[in-house]
This record gives sequence, C-alpha cells and structure tokens, in this order.
Amino acid sequence: MADYRAPLADIDFVLTELCDLEGLSRLEPFAHADPAVVRDLLSEAGRFAAEVVAPTNQPGDQAGCVRHADGTVTTPPGFREAYQAYVDAGWGSVAFDPAHQGGGFPGLVGTSLNELMASANLAWSMAPGLSHGAIHLIEHHGAEAQRERYLPKLVSGEWTGTMNLTEPDAGSDVGAVRTRAVPQPDGTYRITGTKIFISFGEHDLTENIIHLVLARTPGAPPGSKGISCFIVPKHRVNRDGTPGARNDVTCLSIEHKLGIKGSPTCVLAFGEGDGAVGELVGEEHRGMEAMFTMMNQARLAVGLQGLAVAERAYQQALAYAVERRQGRALGAPGGERSPIVEHADVRRMLLTMKASIEAMRRLVYWNAAAIDLSLRHPDPLVREEWAEIAALLTPLSKAWCTDTGIEVASLGIQVHGGVGYIEETGAAQHLRDARITAIYEGTNGIQAIDLVGRKLPVRGGAVVKDHLERIGAVDAELAAAGPELAGVRNELREALAALVEATLWLPTAGPQGALAGATPYLKLFSMVTAGWLMARSALAARARLEHGDGDEAFLRSKVVTARFFCEQLLPAATGLVAAVTAGAEHLFALDPDDLAA
Amino acid sequence: MADYRAPLADIDFVLTELCDLEGLSRLEPFAHADPAVVRDLLSEAGRFAAEVVAPTNQPGDQAGCVRHADGTVTTPPGFREAYQAYVDAGWGSVAFDPAHQGGGFPGLVGTSLNELMASANLAWSMAPGLSHGAIHLIEHHGAEAQRERYLPKLVSGEWTGTMNLTEPDAGSDVGAVRTRAVPQPDGTYRITGTKIFISFGEHDLTENIIHLVLARTPGAPPGSKGISCFIVPKHRVNRDGTPGARNDVTCLSIEHKLGIKGSPTCVLAFGEGDGAVGELVGEEHRGMEAMFTMMNQARLAVGLQGLAVAERAYQQALAYAVERRQGRALGAPGGERSPIVEHADVRRMLLTMKASIEAMRRLVYWNAAAIDLSLRHPDPLVREEWAEIAALLTPLSKAWCTDTGIEVASLGIQVHGGVGYIEETGAAQHLRDARITAIYEGTNGIQAIDLVGRKLPVRGGAVVKDHLERIGAVDAELAAAGPELAGVRNELREALAALVEATLWLPTAGPQGALAGATPYLKLFSMVTAGWLMARSALAARARLEHGDGDEAFLRSKVVTARFFCEQLLPAATGLVAAVTAGAEHLFALDPDDLAA
Repeated sequence: MADYRAPLADIDFVLTELCDLEGLSRLEPFAHADPAVVRDLLSEAGRFAAEVVAPTNQPGDQAGCVRHADGTVTTPPGFREAYQAYVDAGWGSVAFDPAHQGGGFPGLVGTSLNELMASANLAWSMAPGLSHGAIHLIEHHGAEAQRERYLPKLVSGEWTGTMNLTEPDAGSDVGAVRTRAVPQPDGTYRITGTKIFISFGEHDLTENIIHLVLARTPGAPPGSKGISCFIVPKHRVNRDGTPGARNDVTCLSIEHKLGIKGSPTCVLAFGEGDGAVGELVGEEHRGMEAMFTMMNQARLAVGLQGLAVAERAYQQALAYAVERRQGRALGAPGGERSPIVEHADVRRMLLTMKASIEAMRRLVYWNAAAIDLSLRHPDPLVREEWAEIAALLTPLSKAWCTDTGIEVASLGIQVHGGVGYIEETGAAQHLRDARITAIYEGTNGIQAIDLVGRKLPVRGGAVVKDHLERIGAVDAELAAAGPELAGVRNELREALAALVEATLWLPTAGPQGALAGATPYLKLFSMVTAGWLMARSALAARARLEHGDGDEAFLRSKVVTARFFCEQLLPAATGLVAAVTAGAEHLFALDPDDLAA
Repeated sequence: MADYRAPLADIDFVLTELCDLEGLSRLEPFAHADPAVVRDLLSEAGRFAAEVVAPTNQPGDQAGCVRHADGTVTTPPGFREAYQAYVDAGWGSVAFDPAHQGGGFPGLVGTSLNELMASANLAWSMAPGLSHGAIHLIEHHGAEAQRERYLPKLVSGEWTGTMNLTEPDAGSDVGAVRTRAVPQPDGTYRITGTKIFISFGEHDLTENIIHLVLARTPGAPPGSKGISCFIVPKHRVNRDGTPGARNDVTCLSIEHKLGIKGSPTCVLAFGEGDGAVGELVGEEHRGMEAMFTMMNQARLAVGLQGLAVAERAYQQALAYAVERRQGRALGAPGGERSPIVEHADVRRMLLTMKASIEAMRRLVYWNAAAIDLSLRHPDPLVREEWAEIAALLTPLSKAWCTDTGIEVASLGIQVHGGVGYIEETGAAQHLRDARITAIYEGTNGIQAIDLVGRKLPVRGGAVVKDHLERIGAVDAELAAAGPELAGVRNELREALAALVEATLWLPTAGPQGALAGATPYLKLFSMVTAGWLMARSALAARARLEHGDGDEAFLRSKVVTARFFCEQLLPAATGLVAAVTAGAEHLFALDPDDLAA
C-alpha cells in the first residue's frame, strides 16, 4: 500500500473558497479558528495521519481483531499506540465545546480532520468516530451531571463511545427494538437484551467504553415512539470519575467481515447476569428523537468515509500508474515503454476518481459548514435556514458519497490490473472497506426514502425550491465566464432542468411512485448539487488565477476537474430522470415468484 | 449461501427465441442438437451444477488453496470429488469435436452449460474453463500428432490445460514476454522463464496439466511478432499416452487474492533445472496469432462469468428479500412486518439485478451463437459475416457483462443490508469473486480499445453500420406492438441515435480522441445492443402470449424486464455520448504531478 499524503491544498481551497471559513471564524464561538490557524492545525493533523495512523492500515486489515474466551477483544498491532498518540495530541477534541475540554473549532474543521484520519485508516478511525456520535448525543440530551461525568473523558478520547441501535430483528426498522430497561429504586435502569453490529463495542484501546443503548421501558408504546436512550458504561463510574465496577455487558462474538477488519463489530449482551446498569438520557420514550438529532452528523461522517477511502485509493492508484510501465502511449518515443498514466484509458479512470473525490469533498464540507451555521449563527432565522439546508444535504452526502466512494475504490483496483486483485497490493482493501459505508448508519435506500419522504416536503417544498434556485443562480456567472466554462454551463443547465422535472413530478406520483423513484432521484440530486459545487470551484479558481493569487497549476486543475465532472460525468446522471419518473408499475408488475423465474 | 437453481426457463427462452437453436441444429455438425435434446441436457447439467458443484462454493472460498513446500497445491475440500464427477458425467466434452471424443454440440450449448457451472462455483469452474481455451488452441493450431496426444484427455477432462501469457513485466503488454525457448536437436524446445497469474497452474484435480506457454525463440523479432506458443506438459507424455517423467515446471507460490480463492493462481517457474521440455504449436513467431484465434471464446467465457456470478448473487438476494421482514410496506396490513421484497426500493434493486442478468444472458448467448455460425455454417460468406459480428460483440460481452456482473453482485450485498457485509452470509463472496472478471483475459480498458481501434474499422466501418441498422430495424416491430412497448421504442431510438452520433464521431477524433472515448463508448454500445436484445425478447414473449404458447406469468415477466431495462436503465447510458465525444483534452490537461495535487 502506498504512503498517504494529506490533500491539504484541496482541503484549504474548499474551506476558503466554498465554505467561507473566514466567515465562520467571525462567528463568536469560532473566533480563534481563523484560516491561518486552521491551516496549521490541518497540516499538523495531516502529518500525524500520514506518519502515525496510515502505516497501521494494511497491517490492521491483515491481522484483524481477536476476541478471547473471556470476552475481551484485542485490536490489531499498532492500533493502541496510534490511538494513544491521538489522545495525547488532542486530535479528538478539536471540534468540541471548550466547556467540555474541546478545542472549540467548527465542525467543518473537525470534518477535515476526520477525513485525514479516515483516509489513513478507516477501521481505526471508527473508534474516535463513534465517540463523536456519543458526545453529540450526551451534549444535547444528557443531564448536567451526565455531561460532567462523561464528556471530558469522551472528548479527550480517554474513553470511547458506542451507538447500540441494531438488534437481530431490528435493523432498518429501528422501532422494532426489544431490549428492555426496567427502572430501579435508585433511579437507574436494568438493561437486558442483545445488540448486534456494535462497532468498537469491545476493545483494548481505552479503560472504559460508554455505550449508548436504545431500549424499551415497561409499558412503553410499540414502535419507535416507545424507545428510550440509556448510557451503559462498560465500567460504572466512581464518584471521583475513575472507572469502577464492571457492568453487565459482554461481547459474545465479533463478526468476520468483508472489510474494516481492524474495527471489531460486536454482538453485545446486556444483562446476562443481574442486568446492566443504565442511566436514562433525556426523557423516557424520546430515545429516537435523541438519536435523530445526532443523525445528521453521524450520516455526514459516513459520507465523509466514502470520500476518505476514495482519496486513499486514488493516491495509491496514481502512484502505481506513474510507476508501472506497459506498452507505448500514443506519441511516446519509439522503443520506450510508457508509464500507464500516459494511456488515455488509464487517465480516464484517474480523472474520474479525482473529479469524483473533489465533488464529494465539496458536498460533504459544504454540508458540514451548513451544520455549523445551523448551530452557531447568532441569527435564529439564519440558523433555521441552514438547518434545513443541512437536513436536505445529509442524505446526499451519506448515500452519494458512499456509492461513489465504492466506485472510486473499485476503479483503484482496475488501474492496478491483475496486481490490484492481489491482497498484498492493498488496493482491494479499499473496496472491501468502502463497501460497508453504503450500508451502515441507514442504508443508502433509507437515505433516498429520507430525501423523498422527509426532506422534500419540508415547508411545502420551499427548501428544495430554494436549493434548486441557488444552483440555477450560478448560470449567470458561468455565462460571464465565457467559452471555457460553456460546456459546464450547458450540462449543468440540462441536468438542473432534469432535476426540476423530477422534483415537480414526485409530489404527483403518490407515495409508492415517490418511493419507487427515490434512489435514482437521490443520485440525480447529488450529481447536480455536486456539479454546481464543482462549477463554483472552477469559478473561484479562475478568479484567483486572474488575481495571480495561488499556485497556477493547482488552480488550473480545479477548472479541469470541474469541466470533466460536468461535461463527462454529469450527462449520464441527467438520464436518470427517466427512472425517477417511471413510477412503481414495473417494480410491482412481478410477484416475488415471478421474480425468481 | 442460498441454494442454486439453474435458470432453465430463461436459458431455454433465449436459445429458442433469440439464438435460433432450431436453425443451428439444422446445420450438419449439430444435427443431433435439437432443442428437445438440448433442453434435457441442460436440465441434467443444471441438476449437477446445483447438487454437486454449488455446495462447494462457499466452503471453497473459506478454505482456499494451499501450496505445500514441495510445490504441490491442494484445492479446497470437495473440489476433487466434484471435478471427478464432472469428468465422469462428460460435461466438459459436450461442445467439442466428436473427432476428439467431444459431444459435438454447438458452442452455444456449451456456453449455457458453462454458465451453470460458473454460477455454481466460479473458482472451481475455472479448471474446466481454462482447459477449454487450451483445447481450442490445440484444435486450431496443433499438429495432428499433438491433437491426438493431448485433445482426448483434455476434452474428457482427465487432464486440464492452462494459458501462460503473463510475466511480471508483461501484462496487458503481452509483446514484452521474455520467457525463452531454445530449439533442441530432437525437435523440442527448452523453456526457461517465469509466468505469473496462472490459474490452476498447479493443482490436485488431475494427473497431468497441459501448459500452453508463450515464449521467445533465439533471434526472434522484438514485440508480439517474435512470440511463439509451446505445449509444456507437467508430465511428459509417454508413447502410450500415459503421463511420464515430470517436466521442469515448478509452482513457486500461489497468490492471496480478493476472491476466486478456490482457484490457485500460480507463479510458475519453467526451467529452474535443465529447462522445461516444450513442443512448438504451429509456426514459430505465430504464437500471438494462435492466442488471438481462441481469444473470442476465452473473452466470451469471462463475460459469461460476469453473468454467472450475477445470477447466483441475484438468487441469494431474492431469497433473502422474500424471507427477511423489516418495516411495513405501503398498503400492507397494519401491525404486520413486510418481507423487504415488498419495499419499492428493494424491488428496484432486485429488478435492476434481474433485468441486467437477462440482458447479459441475451448478449453473451447471441455472441456464442454468432461464433457457432462463424465456424460451422456451410456458406463461407455467411461464416465470414458472423465472424465479423462475433468479433464485434466479444469486447462488449467481456467488458460490459463483467462490469455489470460486479454491479449486480454489489447490489446483492446491498439487498442484505448489514448481514451482507458478514462473510458467513456469502453475498460478499460474489462481489469478491466477480471483481477479477473485469481484469483478466484483457482488462476492460483493453476491450474498449479493441472495440474502437480494431473492431470499428473493420471493412471501413461496414460491420458496425450493419449492426446499428439491425438494431434500428426493430423499430418497426416495436411500433407495430402498440402502446405497451412505446416506451421501449422511444428509449431505444434515442439511445441508438446517441450511439450513431458517437460512432460517426469516433473516426473523426484522431487516435487519441478515440482512445479517450473508448470506455464510455463500449458501455453505450453494449447497453444499446442489450436493449435491442431485450426489446426482441419482449416481442418474442408477446408473440408467444398471443399464441397461448408457454407459461403466461413467465412470458409476461419478459415484457416487464425489457421495459424496465429500456425505460429505466438505458436512458442513463444515452447520456454517455457526451463522454465519448469529449475528446482527450481533459484527460491530458493535467500533468501527472498536477493529478496528485
């Protein structure tokens, strides 16, 4: 596996030119996050990711995790040391509230930092990643005493957190959760039940693990309205804040998975003995709401993983393509074999990877900035507006960036040819690792249903309408930019027209028709939004070029990737409008029996 | 992993309605292959594949192959027994020349049979599959004595064959082969060199292995014009036909791969000692030509693998979707959880899989029929015409069916949700197995270059023109079919227009421009051809329905899948014309250094 190099130049460009980091840093809570400080921070984090974390990626995949007979789990060699160094450096705390020992940087900066860690080692990065979800939940829904007891250690990374939703019979259908929580005279609850697919549910990185567990109290209404959320620490916490008695939580087994093998995916049994002691978070029966408030961040984090793996796969494929010589490229001197990067078809793969990665980064980062503004802007109306935008963008970030991440990782194998299929090369690991991202934190089908069923109807469709108008508004700028961006302008106009057509059609389709078109609609919506961000990227790069502000080759490359994305990748997405507006007829024309024939 | 059930109804439909098996069986060499006999044969083969081969698939993946210190290789448990049963039943010989103890059935029937075996166990099926390539080569280029010595045992399957092209420095660039072949006074050659990625290069299924090896004789011209082809048996063959002395061929190692783990991928050293004894096949320096004559079949066989794995993945996903209950589907009774097959988005995945599989099967089988006609039709002009069609179709079958097979296998994981990511489920194996098919036997990029660079120019473009006219000619039939197929007609017309536009553009693009557009062109070309075959399939099904000839639900399903394919999947492909005709400018706008930025 090739070395990892943090893509700081593009990150900086996106933060500055598309996400208005400057503006964010003028908001009071982020006053210290001026772009220069952020640049230094990310540069340092990039070095840490490359030097400390990235070398653990392939060995971690090869060694995997081991569960021992006593229920303990050993992570791969090197994971503990890298994690300890991460905690020591304070990387986990950068984007959290200073009130809980966080660094107080915007979530946008945390997102950048998380990209670096996830590129370096996706499986490893899930330990801090899951903790972030737990932190957000306790921050927003925990009682003061809970925040004080758990947040400093979670923010510092001394402890990790987990999210316990899934049960064998409750996957996408979270409302089917059966784990029970019985109130006790001392105010705690006794938790009994089995949770599956719990990432880092048991491990050897930290002395304690704080499980957030969805469960049902006695007499709770059925479905998701009867679910409550509990904190169940692996070790109960003493009054002085140190870990105390072992709680009744056992790792029964870990899964043998396609990828992210360095991340232990646990079956956790709560209350095999006397019942696990849990603390209610927030109000009874409001557990799903608590989960939902952190879902934007969690889903965005998974979209970011798609981007992150793609970036790593791309770096490795490019390094190979520059090195490996086969055949003679057109126009190359006779008698000399060319690096395969000189062959047009290999270039197409590489440019598809690169343009897709840049598009993903722009979408995810802009989404992260929207969340920051939704939380921290002083004007509540502006906060509300950005909250709506963030909610609209989140399913796009999650589903499109993971589907695209998988495609990019697969292209990374293809660039390698036969060697890509050999595990030692490391290219195949990226595909295996990426493949989970389309599934967890709500499958991509669930994201599409969320987009069509929950997000489109917000304010009678006004949020979507505003978004489409925002995209349309770039047309005048593209027109003014002249012939270089004429292709971008044309393809974006056509794609936007297709998206508008699809968007107007969906509310007329009836519920089944809308559900039937949800997945192609999400892809179309994402590609148009990404195309628009790429167009803005090209405009910003041209503006900088005109002012002689920045590295010319780098800025020129932003125009090239935007053109490639809009002129060559976007038009195929435009054709998805037919699938969106086809309705449910074909899908349900065959009985399951006939599907088998 | 779910059981496998041979898709005999669709196979029979394709053979009868699209490939004119009836007409083929009227050709003299195939007189005994009337459709009823073929139906019985495939039904029996389907049972064999399901009962004997399919159960070895997942255990074979889990156990993998083992190379021992003495260079021998053990295949997974059950492989030997299944292979012996295959030989005993004579399945390997069905489509070969009766002169060499073959069954004399058309290659089309052999293709159907191979689909069943590859669905049952892709890795295992490579042993007979590679033998087929060796048989074709020796049949067409071997001397009489070589045919007599090797073919009966290869045809029966008592021995297997291998193809030895690749070396560490000669992959896609086969002309770079460095293995040496030095003539000896006795007419044999001494072969020395190292070959990599040799599937079933060493194994325990048979007492002998016949290696076909590309090598360079002393003073041979550089590049592919100096390559000769040799037979290098693992055991030299005694006069009585029994295996004799061990030849100087050693398996140095086997690869640790992403998938097809039951297939040992060997590094073979020829001539570590005195030199391996080889026999020249055909003329010196004509080795590449010999390889090329069998390449249509070999590449078609890999396209078939894409289809075969997709079929298996689909069967497993459908079985899960019918069984697994999550949530309540629209319109389902209250209080009841629905099988996920009732959710529109899951239906979309399943129908995408099913329609893609049917489209692949139609393309590959029609391609196989074209090869039969190109070899066996009595009229040399007709043979020539079909040879051109087969040559045109082959890169489509190979590249599009493998890319699509990978997509279908990935969808199969997605249908399973989290469980799909767990190896025990077996869904992930299909993706891992399928992933190689886009790489070996000429990467899909090489196929696209073959299509654009070699196949389009044939007879001044007349072959392609005829093909496009053939597709256009279905329009009148679709028009006559009325409103049910109006959508199919419209989308096929639009897609064909895009393909015509791209086809006319390519010769004007210059060599680099044509190479730059090759991959999207191949996809567009394949989708239009597949859409046309699906349209013909729907027309044939409607005709049968009108005559009350056949299972009504089955025939209706052919109309549904054709409509889904043409109305929902084809339009996105139409959008690829932009990428085809974009030229090479974007691809080469960035230096490799800037690609990294």
